[in-house]
Amino acid sequence: MTYQPPIKDLMFNLESLSQWPQVSASPRYRDVELADLRAVLEAFGRFCAETVAPLGPLGDQTGARLEKGAVVMPEGYGEAYAEFVKMGWQSLAHSPKHGGMGLPRAVGAAATEILNAADMSFGLCPLLTDSAVEALAAAGSEEQKALYLGKLIAGEWSGTMNLTEPQAGSDLGLVRTRAMPKADGTYAINGAKIFITYGEHEMSGNIIHLVLARTPGAPDGPKGLSLFIVPKFLLGPDGSPGQRNAVKCVSLEHKLGVRASPTAVLEYDGATGFLVGAEHDGLKCMFVMMTAARFAVGVQGVAIADRAHQKALAQAHERVQSRPVDGSTAAAVAIVRHPDVRRMLMEMRALVEGGRSLAIATAGWLDLAAHGPTEKLAEADAMAEFLAPVVKGFCTEQAVRVASLAVQVHGGMGFIEETGIARLYRDARILPIYEGTTAIQANDLLGRKTLRDGGRTARRLACMIADTETDLRRAGGVAVAVADHLQAARDDFEASLSFLLDTAPRDPDAAYAGSVSFLMLTGTLMAGWQLGRALLAADAARARGDDVDFMTRKIATATFYARHILPDCAGARARIVNGADSLLSAVL
Amino acid sequence: MTYQPPIKDLMFNLESLSQWPQVSASPRYRDVELADLRAVLEAFGRFCAETVAPLGPLGDQTGARLEKGAVVMPEGYGEAYAEFVKMGWQSLAHSPKHGGMGLPRAVGAAATEILNAADMSFGLCPLLTDSAVEALAAAGSEEQKALYLGKLIAGEWSGTMNLTEPQAGSDLGLVRTRAMPKADGTYAINGAKIFITYGEHEMSGNIIHLVLARTPGAPDGPKGLSLFIVPKFLLGPDGSPGQRNAVKCVSLEHKLGVRASPTAVLEYDGATGFLVGAEHDGLKCMFVMMTAARFAVGVQGVAIADRAHQKALAQAHERVQSRPVDGSTAAAVAIVRHPDVRRMLMEMRALVEGGRSLAIATAGWLDLAAHGPTEKLAEADAMAEFLAPVVKGFCTEQAVRVASLAVQVHGGMGFIEETGIARLYRDARILPIYEGTTAIQANDLLGRKTLRDGGRTARRLACMIADTETDLRRAGGVAVAVADHLQAARDDFEASLSFLLDTAPRDPDAAYAGSVSFLMLTGTLMAGWQLGRALLAADAARARGDDVDFMTRKIATATFYARHILPDCAGARARIVNGADSLLSAVL
Repeated sequence: MTYQPPIKDLMFNLESLSQWPQVSASPRYRDVELADLRAVLEAFGRFCAETVAPLGPLGDQTGARLEKGAVVMPEGYGEAYAEFVKMGWQSLAHSPKHGGMGLPRAVGAAATEILNAADMSFGLCPLLTDSAVEALAAAGSEEQKALYLGKLIAGEWSGTMNLTEPQAGSDLGLVRTRAMPKADGTYAINGAKIFITYGEHEMSGNIIHLVLARTPGAPDGPKGLSLFIVPKFLLGPDGSPGQRNAVKCVSLEHKLGVRASPTAVLEYDGATGFLVGAEHDGLKCMFVMMTAARFAVGVQGVAIADRAHQKALAQAHERVQSRPVDGSTAAAVAIVRHPDVRRMLMEMRALVEGGRSLAIATAGWLDLAAHGPTEKLAEADAMAEFLAPVVKGFCTEQAVRVASLAVQVHGGMGFIEETGIARLYRDARILPIYEGTTAIQANDLLGRKTLRDGGRTARRLACMIADTETDLRRAGGVAVAVADHLQAARDDFEASLSFLLDTAPRDPDAAYAGSVSFLMLTGTLMAGWQLGRALLAADAARARGDDVDFMTRKIATATFYARHILPDCAGARARIVNGADSLLSAVL
Repeated sequence: MTYQPPIKDLMFNLESLSQWPQVSASPRYRDVELADLRAVLEAFGRFCAETVAPLGPLGDQTGARLEKGAVVMPEGYGEAYAEFVKMGWQSLAHSPKHGGMGLPRAVGAAATEILNAADMSFGLCPLLTDSAVEALAAAGSEEQKALYLGKLIAGEWSGTMNLTEPQAGSDLGLVRTRAMPKADGTYAINGAKIFITYGEHEMSGNIIHLVLARTPGAPDGPKGLSLFIVPKFLLGPDGSPGQRNAVKCVSLEHKLGVRASPTAVLEYDGATGFLVGAEHDGLKCMFVMMTAARFAVGVQGVAIADRAHQKALAQAHERVQSRPVDGSTAAAVAIVRHPDVRRMLMEMRALVEGGRSLAIATAGWLDLAAHGPTEKLAEADAMAEFLAPVVKGFCTEQAVRVASLAVQVHGGMGFIEETGIARLYRDARILPIYEGTTAIQANDLLGRKTLRDGGRTARRLACMIADTETDLRRAGGVAVAVADHLQAARDDFEASLSFLLDTAPRDPDAAYAGSVSFLMLTGTLMAGWQLGRALLAADAARARGDDVDFMTRKIATATFYARHILPDCAGARARIVNGADSLLSAVL
């Protein structure tokens, strides 16, 4: 089945759920029309569907291979990447100051979804480059920006994040890689890094590794880390790649999924590194990069879920099996007629569209925080910071669920690799793990984003949801039931919030025992809220006679989500409020 | 990590939750002591842990291969199977009349769990043989029983189920394989069958295929099917395998998991078949086989979940990462200390032990239906029939969830194939599909097991649960909270039941839209009920001073299950009672 980029739904989200109306008033976007954004996404969608999507099956089968220290990519990846660079797609959402197209992050998120739905193994290379750009733009010196940013934004060079070591995964405080200062102001980097996505390959002219390491005498733990640029090829006087640096790929991992994406073990043997930002500020610099990467991984979750849903929907229309339970015909019918197949398809659709809306709305707040009117900046920033770990945690967990449902819709054929749906199930499984596990996202949401401001941002969001409920009740009809379910879920959210705020100071373990349930409850509610807003926008558009089929479909998604997904918030609340004791006291 | 057969928990279940006290009074088991059963399971556990479990990693990597029409099994499988046969393990739960050990089904279920936890690819061969034995014992002629049963029960020959064809999966009515009667009373079988587990291999001396096919002039649909024995080697006059029959393996599937188990496409080219039972009674005969296989697949779910939990628990004790959230030490600790890791481990443990208890209790009712006092037979049979699709559907869906959680506990290492946990995640995914998808089980539960008797069996179970609640309240302490949660979940069950009984006659689609939610709600409640009974038994044992650590651990599991898993019933009820419209009306 060919991949169909969901341009219409992405544009609907951009127009109705992101902060576009406010963002478009800013100086940067004053001359940009929605039609321009649509044209960009359509062109990118064509490229992804025609050039990237066909790479997947063979890419998965062959995998990236290490031969004599060089990574051999599966057939077609190099050519597709060259075209990606030539068309300038890497630059889409980056600042015009360094050659980027400067489109809003909400459009960037849409593009990230499309690319990763086409092929996540391919999409990981630009994703890491995007993150390196964010980190250098935020923390690099002017000289470093001049040397690296243009090439990275063009996609001519790619970027990596070098954090993990065998003993240091979620806990970066345990990083042991050393950086010895040299007389010329550079550093000699020594150590081993693992799980380095696109840590070695030959699709780009250079690879800019961003490496966390410890300088001599640095304090133990996370506060002693510094960030370094370690280019695969050191730059010559003219800024072009010259001598090979002392970093090499010693092996590639044999992974469950995203097999075409090379996951490298890198050995640094006195490699030349350049300090980014101040010494010991490494984690702070890296956090900029991680936030961008985490949000993008959440979008990958939407991408995989959408691709899996598209494939399952096509299968359900094609496969003929069994007569209907209502006995309306004695002949076998397409399985899309069977109630439980419909249930699975609607569950997938609701989670895909809910996740997408949550991601685009969050990106919209990021845009508002960057380009909005002064009085909105702080609030927009708080909203985006609160929702970023939710996008990552919720959308990736749902991607695993949706991919699993898609396998189920395929029945026995789903278990056969040639069918292709098992690949998405395998690919999806990394999403709740890399760039911070779901538990790490939940700790961020609960600790830094909820407890730290005394629940202020969380309550502000609850108020906004209550406003949407009011609008839904005014709209009447099916919207009233959606409002009822939103209200019940919001009540679960607020009760959980009160419990957590009350409990955390005196019993942190009891609060954190519910952290993932709180993240999932929050994600379920926030995505449901966005779909409630979507229902209102669709209802208004339908009344105007705009694209009635699409709008009716959107209203159906929102209604299903409210009736089938939102009720799970009650279980999450019960676990948060009553569950800690039975969890903490058990002997394991 | 080596596999540790959970003998202690299996024996606790057998003693406290199965119907052993009543069954052991029957003539067959009058002389059997619990200590005898324990000795058998311990010996079998040693064999599985030492001989079968080590096969898995290489078996998965190599996979079964087809070479010149013959299946080459991965290294060690043939030898292990020979030892399995030599030790007589295939005969464990089969009737002494044909050479079986004749142990109760509850013990058989325990053994099935152990074998499949050790290696599910290996376990599938005996599982299919067990099913073939069931079908022939129920529907074969005396001559057929004499020819085949002894060899099958000894494991010298293996069995297969030949149902599926490319156009006929869940819908067996679409089967096209033909059976032409020949002058000698045998039939010529022509057609192609797919997804035949262990459809070809050379570990056993013969393979007895049980094949669904259509005789000339048979009615269309499921009522025109007949069942045939098609041996790989036709038997000579002395009953030993002679001439090769005209059935051959044309290919093996390339699967997501259970790769060491050969899944064959078989071509029947005028193969000689022997009618089992009456013409057109094929589906009825096959149903006997399917019920046994379905129950066993549910037990496979418990097996994979237990293995995944064991591996994750070991990892959590070993892996040191991050300091505790309560700040009690500044040093990194074993991740088992972190609240969310505990949450995942307890969720796994609760689902494993809940599923196991449900399976053993169901097997206990099967035993009671076969060997109990006359006045109990009908009720025991109804209970077992009601719970069989629940064991299959619930335990297999939970196996996927538990395997996924186990990957998550491993973090990045979980995504690396060499770690071994990804294999369980891949293996588990077939469980909710084969031997009838979850939707098929749910249709069986709702249609044949619930609506057909007007909800009588379901309500009888609800009464028994209410009795357990009373006992829990009397026990006091933590048991009261468990009773509260059980009561709430039972209320969800009864409200759903009323809705379904009321709705199905006038709007079958609306009832069946909630079928899988009903199955999951039922499974969640029934497993929680068994754990409530387990709590009472453990409480009593602890008061007597019996194995206090184990009993305390069991009480903790039951309490966690009640507080964390049972609350999901509320969401399921909401979907069943309010969800049908939004599901059925949407345009897909």
